[in-house]
Amino acid sequence: MKPDKRNQILDAARKRFFHYGVKKTTMEEIAKDAGVAVGTLYLYFKDKDMIVEGCVDRFISKHGDEEKKILNSKVSTEKKLINYMVARFRASKETRTGTSHAAEMTKKVLTLRPNRLKEEGDQMVRVISSILSDGCQRREFNITDIDETVFVFLHAIGWFFPLATDEFREEPDEKAFLKVIRWFIKQWKI
Amino acid sequence: MKPDKRNQILDAARKRFFHYGVKKTTMEEIAKDAGVAVGTLYLYFKDKDMIVEGCVDRFISKHGDEEKKILNSKVSTEKKLINYMVARFRASKETRTGTSHAAEMTKKVLTLRPNRLKEEGDQMVRVISSILSDGCQRREFNITDIDETVFVFLHAIGWFFPLATDEFREEPDEKAFLKVIRWFIKQWKI
Repeated sequence: MKPDKRNQILDAARKRFFHYGVKKTTMEEIAKDAGVAVGTLYLYFKDKDMIVEGCVDRFISKHGDEEKKILNSKVSTEKKLINYMVARFRASKETRTGTSHAAEMTKKVLTLRPNRLKEEGDQMVRVISSILSDGCQRREFNITDIDETVFVFLHAIGWFFPLATDEFREEPDEKAFLKVIRWFIKQWKI
Repeated sequence: MKPDKRNQILDAARKRFFHYGVKKTTMEEIAKDAGVAVGTLYLYFKDKDMIVEGCVDRFISKHGDEEKKILNSKVSTEKKLINYMVARFRASKETRTGTSHAAEMTKKVLTLRPNRLKEEGDQMVRVISSILSDGCQRREFNITDIDETVFVFLHAIGWFFPLATDEFREEPDEKAFLKVIRWFIKQWKI
């Protein structure tokens, strides 16, 4: 199994899913677009669901990469937090607005991985806790109870992360999102 | 037109909508349950949509009554804010969990009144601004920029007010809601 070929398949599948949705995409089409034989495709993924899961894993791993990059960047805590939050906001927006099949894809992913939203929340809690703790150690922030504060902060920004399946909801505005984040930073800054 | 009879009709309709949904309910059934002739029903409401709108107007007017009662109550600002927020939280929860036809009803209401969510948000902004301003005048709270603070606060609690049409969302927890509200109050209290 070659990681390159695996990625090639996932790239082709993702494009198909984005353009035609998951249901309408066949294993044959994915194999053709990826330039591999159908038999080869089945060696890598036993069915379409496994390909969808592969796409989710890449999304999670991309989140992890961004996380590391931002946590290790040599900028102020304030900037670090803003960079991380904006990256999450845009990644979430992309899943909703990047394709007209966003609702179908979200539904599929959450059916395959009912725990997905909790996982994403937990990952954000971990990163934000780490940024805020670091900010306190560097004496840039003053926060008495980090756990409680992260709990409140994460709920406070939840509204800006709707699901593609949520009807009657306007796309949240990045400026409003930043206004909320900056307000919190103002409470924490020394 | 007698307000009593109007209310009688809306009570009967609401019960029908809750038990059988809007689509499956007929004008004849509503008239029968309300104990009025079908001809009389049509004098009050020209169609089922108007009855749905009538139910919405009563919901709004109930919000207004609760608002007045809480704003005029002789309790601390902190208690006033908590009472108002909990009343909104429970009213919202009731629209989602009070009937198995909640999603259908929400869809219907938002189709008839696309502005409904904005209206509800505006009403909350008005009440919360008034409570916070009053708290500052009474020197119980210290808030520099009320407008900005209310903007942040309202977004921060938005997550606790999902729509019945939002899939894949657990019912928000009242304890978590209160934890967020109490955190904000802590920032504001003198």
